[in-house]
Amino acid sequence: MIEGKRLLVVSAHAADYVWRSGGTIAHYLKHGAQVKVVCLSVGVRGESNDLWKQPGQTAEKVAEIRTGESEKAAALLGIQDIEFWGLQDYPMTLGMQEQERLLRIIRSFRPDIILTHDRNDVLNPDHNHVHEFVWQTAIMSNSSGVETDGFKATKQMRLYGFEPHQTELSGFVPGSFIDITDVYEQKVAAMQCFQAQKHLIKYYTDRASLRGNHARRISGDASIEYAESFANFFPVVDTEFH
Amino acid sequence: MIEGKRLLVVSAHAADYVWRSGGTIAHYLKHGAQVKVVCLSVGVRGESNDLWKQPGQTAEKVAEIRTGESEKAAALLGIQDIEFWGLQDYPMTLGMQEQERLLRIIRSFRPDIILTHDRNDVLNPDHNHVHEFVWQTAIMSNSSGVETDGFKATKQMRLYGFEPHQTELSGFVPGSFIDITDVYEQKVAAMQCFQAQKHLIKYYTDRASLRGNHARRISGDASIEYAESFANFFPVVDTEFH
Amino acid sequence: MIEGKRLLVVSAHAADYVWRSGGTIAHYLKHGAQVKVVCLSVGVRGESNDLWKQPGQTAEKVAEIRTGESEKAAALLGIQDIEFWGLQDYPMTLGMQEQERLLRIIRSFRPDIILTHDRNDVLNPDHNHVHEFVWQTAIMSNSSGVETDGFKATKQMRLYGFEPHQTELSGFVPGSFIDITDVYEQKVAAMQCFQAQKHLIKYYTDRASLRGNHARRISGDASIEYAESFANFFPVVDTEFH
Amino acid sequence: MIEGKRLLVVSAHAADYVWRSGGTIAHYLKHGAQVKVVCLSVGVRGESNDLWKQPGQTAEKVAEIRTGESEKAAALLGIQDIEFWGLQDYPMTLGMQEQERLLRIIRSFRPDIILTHDRNDVLNPDHNHVHEFVWQTAIMSNSSGVETDGFKATKQMRLYGFEPHQTELSGFVPGSFIDITDVYEQKVAAMQCFQAQKHLIKYYTDRASLRGNHARRISGDASIEYAESFANFFPVVDTEFH
Amino acid sequence: MIEGKRLLVVSAHAADYVWRSGGTIAHYLKHGAQVKVVCLSVGVRGESNDLWKQPGQTAEKVAEIRTGESEKAAALLGIQDIEFWGLQDYPMTLGMQEQERLLRIIRSFRPDIILTHDRNDVLNPDHNHVHEFVWQTAIMSNSSGVETDGFKATKQMRLYGFEPHQTELSGFVPGSFIDITDVYEQKVAAMQCFQAQKHLIKYYTDRASLRGNHARRISGDASIEYAESFANFFPVVDTEFH
Amino acid sequence: MIEGKRLLVVSAHAADYVWRSGGTIAHYLKHGAQVKVVCLSVGVRGESNDLWKQPGQTAEKVAEIRTGESEKAAALLGIQDIEFWGLQDYPMTLGMQEQERLLRIIRSFRPDIILTHDRNDVLNPDHNHVHEFVWQTAIMSNSSGVETDGFKATKQMRLYGFEPHQTELSGFVPGSFIDITDVYEQKVAAMQCFQAQKHLIKYYTDRASLRGNHARRISGDASIEYAESFANFFPVVDTEFH
Repeated sequence: MIEGKRLLVVSAHAADYVWRSGGTIAHYLKHGAQVKVVCLSVGVRGESNDLWKQPGQTAEKVAEIRTGESEKAAALLGIQDIEFWGLQDYPMTLGMQEQERLLRIIRSFRPDIILTHDRNDVLNPDHNHVHEFVWQTAIMSNSSGVETDGFKATKQMRLYGFEPHQTELSGFVPGSFIDITDVYEQKVAAMQCFQAQKHLIKYYTDRASLRGNHARRISGDASIEYAESFANFFPVVDTEFH
Repeated sequence: MIEGKRLLVVSAHAADYVWRSGGTIAHYLKHGAQVKVVCLSVGVRGESNDLWKQPGQTAEKVAEIRTGESEKAAALLGIQDIEFWGLQDYPMTLGMQEQERLLRIIRSFRPDIILTHDRNDVLNPDHNHVHEFVWQTAIMSNSSGVETDGFKATKQMRLYGFEPHQTELSGFVPGSFIDITDVYEQKVAAMQCFQAQKHLIKYYTDRASLRGNHARRISGDASIEYAESFANFFPVVDTEFH
Repeated sequence: MIEGKRLLVVSAHAADYVWRSGGTIAHYLKHGAQVKVVCLSVGVRGESNDLWKQPGQTAEKVAEIRTGESEKAAALLGIQDIEFWGLQDYPMTLGMQEQERLLRIIRSFRPDIILTHDRNDVLNPDHNHVHEFVWQTAIMSNSSGVETDGFKATKQMRLYGFEPHQTELSGFVPGSFIDITDVYEQKVAAMQCFQAQKHLIKYYTDRASLRGNHARRISGDASIEYAESFANFFPVVDTEFH
Repeated sequence: MIEGKRLLVVSAHAADYVWRSGGTIAHYLKHGAQVKVVCLSVGVRGESNDLWKQPGQTAEKVAEIRTGESEKAAALLGIQDIEFWGLQDYPMTLGMQEQERLLRIIRSFRPDIILTHDRNDVLNPDHNHVHEFVWQTAIMSNSSGVETDGFKATKQMRLYGFEPHQTELSGFVPGSFIDITDVYEQKVAAMQCFQAQKHLIKYYTDRASLRGNHARRISGDASIEYAESFANFFPVVDTEFH
Repeated sequence: MIEGKRLLVVSAHAADYVWRSGGTIAHYLKHGAQVKVVCLSVGVRGESNDLWKQPGQTAEKVAEIRTGESEKAAALLGIQDIEFWGLQDYPMTLGMQEQERLLRIIRSFRPDIILTHDRNDVLNPDHNHVHEFVWQTAIMSNSSGVETDGFKATKQMRLYGFEPHQTELSGFVPGSFIDITDVYEQKVAAMQCFQAQKHLIKYYTDRASLRGNHARRISGDASIEYAESFANFFPVVDTEFH
Repeated sequence: MIEGKRLLVVSAHAADYVWRSGGTIAHYLKHGAQVKVVCLSVGVRGESNDLWKQPGQTAEKVAEIRTGESEKAAALLGIQDIEFWGLQDYPMTLGMQEQERLLRIIRSFRPDIILTHDRNDVLNPDHNHVHEFVWQTAIMSNSSGVETDGFKATKQMRLYGFEPHQTELSGFVPGSFIDITDVYEQKVAAMQCFQAQKHLIKYYTDRASLRGNHARRISGDASIEYAESFANFFPVVDTEFH
């Protein structure tokens, strides 16, 4: 049951959460979940190539444009709670201060599920740092001895990894397919907001269709047209199989 | 929801289904599932060591004893539908005839879930053959062009792999933990039936406790005391995470 | 230089060579290569699902339709040398006789390159058998002591593996991307011939586009629009890097 | 021959060396080895959950309790040489200064064997840092150009990795089983000292029994009742097989 | 202690046991072990390339030459107990009859150690079949229910895998290095016997030197000049580390 | 075609580029490539063991000797463009400043190919840091938003990994073999310059011969006598197979 579930999404750059989990976020929101998105950077340096082709471009303008695009996309997905940390990207440095900030978010928001980058992206060092950062902080959050402004320790929440761009080269293995058929149009609309990465709009549209095919074949459920896939950090634990 | 689910278990020898999935079977039965167990052999040659220490022992007597033990264990788990194919073990030969027999069972029983041996058991060649046999037959069952007595083709059912005896050496990775706390006593009672493998009763009792610890830590659910773990042949496909 | 190269393609079923290497074949033919295709079966049982939905369908009719489709597709790709062995599929049995037949083909055609199924397809046992069969025969072909009608032993030719349908679950890792932009229309036309597998036409059209994106990103060559990917059985050996 | 061997154990927290190698340490001491244990932290933040449930708890009190428990456990195992570095845990920072400190210990103690955490613990970032730290320092210690207070460079000592808590998820593969049957009671007694981690006492008691079963099966030696397992960082090098 | 140990070596072709374990065999014999070698084939078809270049060559002559070479090499290594099964190679078929024959050898010779081909040789299908064959038979041998001419079941002996020719492509990982410095000259002399595979004499001479370098670096034992490496099928089980 | 290609080699220590890619460099230079070598350190601490055995040795003298050896080796290989950064080794620290320095080199030299250390060297932490450093910087270099003194962003160049010393333990898999037969004498001469690492001269001479054997077997090209092997960071992308 999605209703009442709390989903935290940690995105290295301004658009990662849209390409890789926009459908799942919209679907969770549509069915009654609370969703919070943290964008560590807006990808000024590493994910705004087309914007830098304009003469006289500055980091400030790029940041403004990218933030605007991301806010618009978030709105289209139904996200009301999104925060931008404005960290530098390429390279991204995640220290003690960032760790405490994320820890407070985890302990106050108390997510059932965290979505973030998977272990390895062969073409993006920032994604790997974010994976390590989120994983470490999530583990620390479970420990009562790690004190943070009086927030209580959490229990182990579920962690899932985004699909990286070139999956096989990055050793990505899908552990979960989420059916996003009922919100697919929203995802497409949200992706259209990112004009600095036009080639990815086509890419992730095709991707959703391929993952839909995979999900259909594996489940035998012919109604799935579009899907997103995620790596499972942990095994499923339940009173029944899924 | 377990109620109404159909679970098929294919076991290489007389006791495999009990050691490795006895709790899950009892739990599924308790909550309203239909369960069918197929024992390909009773393990006369490969899994009855202690019985062969008795002077004058014969294959017939061993088979009779092992079948009796397995029937008793099945009854304790609540299993009403179990069949013994009586194949030779060590080595086990699974040919076209066995494949058609299993195909008919899959197509007539129409399981939602099949449990059987995982891909690799570093200490048991029979287990590996059974894995290959069940996987191939399950795939074939989905194809309309494979004709079997007029039974309709299936859709892809879920497949899960038993935990082998020495997991890390066999490359086993748990994909699902099933909480068996509510039927643990039944599993222990069923295991007690196999007097030719006493060392395994202690082993799988400890195992259930360790897996319970693992499941508790990963899920944060303190009520789990005992669990069984399984490999996922396929990713989870659903409208939500599990 | 493609001109003069000899390319042998071994396909488990009637359409595999088209979905997985149709662009590469057309591209090689266009640039002067000799291509020979061997279809071990036409996939009557395992890959003709939609045809079996027609009342009164028979294996003979399905075989006829599938062979016709495959011949038409081959013609559209420019293939003049294709042979159909008509083996049963699902399951496919490849014995000594088939091995000698393939050996004679390898030794008489003397390919520089063999394309066939990769090591593991998690959803298709036939594909795995064909991989093993082709790999073993190719190794045997290099040995002078293996006598076949007076044909001389070969030297080690290059072997590449087709992309399976669900790549990450099958452990597929791309070793080579072939740019098929200049023959893409031919591949699409050829795929349209297989009306029993309509869902795959959309799938492999999207796939070519995704692989084009991957190839572009890795090579920095913006002219690549469509690509096919293959596993490398062996490292590249040359006087320079590629 | 254990007699005269020098064994260095590097433990991230106060109890790791007991859960994971307490039996091996006691056994080595019993048979004449020199053993030195370094506890980098006492696990105030990350491994003292139950202690933090007491109202008014402070880091100082937790540290005192944990150090006391660890000293008591060490004494029960027969360890006379143990040092507590008192580093912070969760997260643990291991810099140049710590590296020089460990280097001096390695070069002055001159261990034949170092035991420490294995490469990957999916539930404990500190363990991973300690692995990297010990491995790097051990490699550096072999190099004459790395100068430390006049101590001579070492030759390559043996390195073994502790079993992490959830072995399969962490990719742990046992390379060595050490038979701890003759000191099992000591290990159990030592484990009882850690009252903040009661759930682990049961866990590692069961574990020793399972590993005993594994060791027995693999070696054919029926006298092994309890064992500990370790990952081999390096292959065995000798004039005979083991 | 090597003295009194019983070592069984199962070799796919006439020279495999020499290239891959000739030094270890000579070393074991020199120090008092019992060694038995089984050559399943003499490699008439797959490993006698140069002999087939002679006009008028026949399988009979090749078999005679290869058997003679192997007997001479065995003598130089000090082997007195070697048997040639004369199976066909390329491909090699190992059925029930061969399994019973090996089973009788294992149960009568009662080896402490079996050396044979490792799991995967990317360039030699016969080697893979022999691995599977020996591993299965060794497991079966431990089971009392598998009856063979009244021979008693064995306990689990140690199993080690030969280094294949292209190790990294075959996924070979050294688990044990055996120092063969004291018998190196014998190994070189034995290798010289195989005139149909001259390129391998140079290859395995270099190999012994590289493995010596590896073993020296890992052990810190400067006296090791030449070594052979093997994969460990099972972890080391003992009362101490090695 | 090598002519006109631009090859950048990044070496952790003074001799790494010679042992691991000296033949490839000489071959590329001979055939008209531009080559630039960056030596991050000269390996004063970690790779000059024999020099430190001389009484009264100092870091300055070692650095001078090692730099001299490396310059001489470079000259013998035909390298005219080599720079020594003089960083400390064992451990090596690579921060933001070093990253910008390398970035400027990549963007001004604009290599088609970068050679550096592979992902994992089980016996050398510096090598691993250099891998990570070069990979991250190469990725960053492709991004227009990462500004460096007005140099234009690059397109993705090819990246290849050096063979580490103990390949199988380090998980190295050869992706490319480069035939160095025509420059082998030059490589041997260059290796002779490094008198502090005499044992490696023999080692890498044998290695070139083994890799030549491997390359010959895989390619069927009997003219290859010596080769170097490299890991492919990325798949081959081209209009044909290699």
